Amino acid sequence: MKRLVWNALDEAGREAALARPVQTHAVGLNEVVRRIVAEVRRHGDKALLRFTASYDRCELERLDVTPDEFKEAEAALDPTLKAAIREAAGRIDAFHRAAAPAAVAVETAPGVRVERVLRPINRVGLYVPAGSAPLPSTALMLGVPARIAGCAEVVLCSPARADGRCDPAVLYAARVVGVHRVFKLGGAQAIAAMAYGTASVPRCDKLFGPGNAWVTEAKVQVSTDPRGAAIDMPAGPSEVLVVADALAEPAFVAADLLSQAEHGLDSQVLLVSPSDALLDAVAEEVERQCAALPRAGIALGALAHSRLIRVDSVAQAIEVSNRYAPEHLILQVAEPRVWLAQVECAGSVFLGAWTPESVGDYASGSNHVLPTYGYARSHSGVSVASFQKQISVQELTPEGLRAIGPCTATLAAAEQLDAHRRAVTLRLAALDAEVSLA
Amino acid sequence: MKRLVWNALDEAGREAALARPVQTHAVGLNEVVRRIVAEVRRHGDKALLRFTASYDRCELERLDVTPDEFKEAEAALDPTLKAAIREAAGRIDAFHRAAAPAAVAVETAPGVRVERVLRPINRVGLYVPAGSAPLPSTALMLGVPARIAGCAEVVLCSPARADGRCDPAVLYAARVVGVHRVFKLGGAQAIAAMAYGTASVPRCDKLFGPGNAWVTEAKVQVSTDPRGAAIDMPAGPSEVLVVADALAEPAFVAADLLSQAEHGLDSQVLLVSPSDALLDAVAEEVERQCAALPRAGIALGALAHSRLIRVDSVAQAIEVSNRYAPEHLILQVAEPRVWLAQVECAGSVFLGAWTPESVGDYASGSNHVLPTYGYARSHSGVSVASFQKQISVQELTPEGLRAIGPCTATLAAAEQLDAHRRAVTLRLAALDAEVSLA
Ligand SMILES: [Zn+2]
Ligand SMILES: [Zn+2]
Repeated sequence: MKRLVWNALDEAGREAALARPVQTHAVGLNEVVRRIVAEVRRHGDKALLRFTASYDRCELERLDVTPDEFKEAEAALDPTLKAAIREAAGRIDAFHRAAAPAAVAVETAPGVRVERVLRPINRVGLYVPAGSAPLPSTALMLGVPARIAGCAEVVLCSPARADGRCDPAVLYAARVVGVHRVFKLGGAQAIAAMAYGTASVPRCDKLFGPGNAWVTEAKVQVSTDPRGAAIDMPAGPSEVLVVADALAEPAFVAADLLSQAEHGLDSQVLLVSPSDALLDAVAEEVERQCAALPRAGIALGALAHSRLIRVDSVAQAIEVSNRYAPEHLILQVAEPRVWLAQVECAGSVFLGAWTPESVGDYASGSNHVLPTYGYARSHSGVSVASFQKQISVQELTPEGLRAIGPCTATLAAAEQLDAHRRAVTLRLAALDAEVSLA
Repeated sequence: MKRLVWNALDEAGREAALARPVQTHAVGLNEVVRRIVAEVRRHGDKALLRFTASYDRCELERLDVTPDEFKEAEAALDPTLKAAIREAAGRIDAFHRAAAPAAVAVETAPGVRVERVLRPINRVGLYVPAGSAPLPSTALMLGVPARIAGCAEVVLCSPARADGRCDPAVLYAARVVGVHRVFKLGGAQAIAAMAYGTASVPRCDKLFGPGNAWVTEAKVQVSTDPRGAAIDMPAGPSEVLVVADALAEPAFVAADLLSQAEHGLDSQVLLVSPSDALLDAVAEEVERQCAALPRAGIALGALAHSRLIRVDSVAQAIEVSNRYAPEHLILQVAEPRVWLAQVECAGSVFLGAWTPESVGDYASGSNHVLPTYGYARSHSGVSVASFQKQISVQELTPEGLRAIGPCTATLAAAEQLDAHRRAVTLRLAALDAEVSLA
């Protein structure tokens, strides 16, 4: 792991120290995805079956998961895993329900009632990858807030295995959180199907979830087409920044860095500390623990472009973190809550020695679909609000129009919008006429 | 105005009846904007001064508005207009403050504290167009929620007039809502300057506000560049859908349709009613009122592609509206609040005879930066939340880790993420060791 001293770096050096890996895609990825999307729009289910045969290597007769397949999945699954899925869903439900937006109504002037009402996004599409391993937790993280929001139709796509079945844990999780329909679809073709609809797959208003480069590119393409679908957020490789002080337990810090590193070769892992001794000890622990990991190869690859950064103080570590804007921020320092107040940009924050990042991935109740790649400067993680529209509503009584009509007319006149002005003065004149008749 | 009977239309006819005008741009607009953005990134302020000279036809020596210019603007402005700006700002402040997200903290298990904390987006850029007329109201609609969110740096760009000054009402509004710095910049060059920064203009994390085709295209370009900036929402021409029953006042309905029509040639205006008599009367009133408007030419142009749609019932009118998903929805029907419950998609809703759309543009307190062009199916208008990040936080005690650690470890194992599992089991083992030592 590369070791740097923050105060010894000039501005360019600091920029480089916090640089994300440039996302290089296969040459022509855009075009390949554009062709897949066009094919799905033109040939619908036929194109989907064809792409599934060639990319997922399984010949399907139908794309949707049948009730029998759900039952088989449930029967096949280890009871401990089923209990864990239900337990995690319950905790995700509790937190997301508490954090859901509320309707609002205020009187901004006598007779002027202004409200914000909430409506579910009608049809939503969830994508659950199954590349190196199935991700039932992602089905929970997307399905629970969709259910709380009350979306009328919740569709989930996940690629089938070579045996033509979806992963049973993903199916069970989907069922637990009330997903309405699951389709055996992966890659750009799944995104295209949900954005534009086919005979089998309903057209969705908004798409959610992580994915590989094809999925990501397809999400960008459909979200910049007004006839396509909205998306949850821009995507990038996963990352963690750990701030640890001299008293942090090196074995815990190392374990958290490795959790992030095992996600993928493009994962980014940063450790920022004022203590040289801690940095030494963690580097040693990482090497020791990594050797025992089944995914050691991936973790080593990710660690190759990770960084250990020595700073002056915990305060400076937080400054570095705010500049980097990590997806995950772990504070293994004394009194982490004091430092939380200084945190400006992060997707999710983990406080203290007993809060490994993995609890946020699975079971604390917070969402694990978070802004990466610096997007935490301007974006938030998925929440119930991501599955809703907030509609403003106003209702004026005659008294209300008398109260704010003149202000409205003055501003409309200043903006040279005379019809806007008259829509008010016409009504005020009608009110005056009524009064003089009475 | 084109007249249609909904029940006489087949599916294709209905699709066509609610079709938005296709947004056709000048050929090569993308490329022109791409060149402007590249020039601003390469040559900074020099490029900005050059583009301002050629597009806004004014030679500037500096881009920022000086304290003296703010003072002059304030001195020059009509006191009634100043009072109206302050009054509107106060009401926008009241509603947006009431509707702002709140911090949340819950215990999802004993010893597992999960929170959502709010942080302002650090630097935000507001764009206020000044094409056919200056828009001080847009400065209020963007500046008030930015101030409530607590953004550290609020930058506003608005094109200068030929005399090298910004519109005094826009400057006064910017000052009232606490905008930190105003720059005399318009078009794609303003968006590029705020997204990437120059010597004069600070680099912003997120950009807000309406604009012409150049501004819109520039916003798309910078928002799809990870080194660029986030944007508020996708843009499209403004639109209204009015639902009116037989008892609605035709003069009021006509005034509201014309308010929308005068916004621009590409505005869309739909009237949906179960009453043929009402449709007749409104058509007549529109003609009469339009003749008296200064912007009659624009209004007539917009009305040329507007529609009067006869439906069976108010219930069917709401169905049509939900399918169209209008930016503005006016319900001039008996008991509008009853029908509000059926409204699924809209940017902002106006209830009853005394609530013209213009109060929402200026003074009711709701925001007028709203999703158009069908985006109301999946997007919401600008609010305080648009200027904030929601960060999740978790803090576990040893008891908390004992409570949710096993669930976490089970799920991590199911997803074949062994380092995630070990980050938990390592800590649980440390806790057990402590207990056995005690
Ligand atoms: Zn993880
Ligand atoms: Zn308007």
